[in-house]
Amino acid sequence: MNEALFKAIKFGPDGLVAAIAQAHDTGEVLMAAFMNREAIEKTLATGEVHYFSRSRHALWRKGESSGQTQRLIELRLDCDGDALLLLVDQTGVACHTGRRSCFFRALKDGELKTITNVLVDPERLYGER
Amino acid sequence: MNEALFKAIKFGPDGLVAAIAQAHDTGEVLMAAFMNREAIEKTLATGEVHYFSRSRHALWRKGESSGQTQRLIELRLDCDGDALLLLVDQTGVACHTGRRSCFFRALKDGELKTITNVLVDPERLYGER
Repeated sequence: MNEALFKAIKFGPDGLVAAIAQAHDTGEVLMAAFMNREAIEKTLATGEVHYFSRSRHALWRKGESSGQTQRLIELRLDCDGDALLLLVDQTGVACHTGRRSCFFRALKDGELKTITNVLVDPERLYGER
Repeated sequence: MNEALFKAIKFGPDGLVAAIAQAHDTGEVLMAAFMNREAIEKTLATGEVHYFSRSRHALWRKGESSGQTQRLIELRLDCDGDALLLLVDQTGVACHTGRRSCFFRALKDGELKTITNVLVDPERLYGER
């Protein structure tokens, strides 16, 4: 299935390709993560975005513990095939800190500042840990 | 300079961090590339985005041969510090194919389709090669 796609993707030596999730409606860049072939296949088969966690070395469905899922609207590939852009319909917040986007720190006058607010208490997303 | 920033960035074992360039005005995701510490320092010092080319193993200033430069508007960092989001003012086109964004292929009904047009002839950007 989708052999042309998998030929066009240049997976790294670890079998992973970078994936950027962008909100299909607002254009916000929500997060950057990695996918392996299986994550892409499950994403396309279910319409729910799956990634591969390098730290846990495991496939995960975005939102499987937090409920903050991503529905795939469109999958795009860049010119050299080593990055995916996922246009998604984000339920709630993408970041585990409870912020809409993981890119919530910006360099301002030489200092890293937090530029967006927590929208959902992480304890509500993940329970007490 | 910016020691707090460089402490917060988690460079990979190759000394690189993923960087996503997004048009500051339209929100288009233009490209994904890599930066090393020197690329970030030069970007902050000059306001012109520099990357590190993995294939050429060299620092490059975006647009140095094509003229399609990127002026940095804001640098953002994600929650786990392993990806940068660069809000940029893109001169002309970001892709070496002459398209605005490198993400010009999308999966449609199981097939990769080209979804955007060439705006500038690559020969005009790079001369005859």
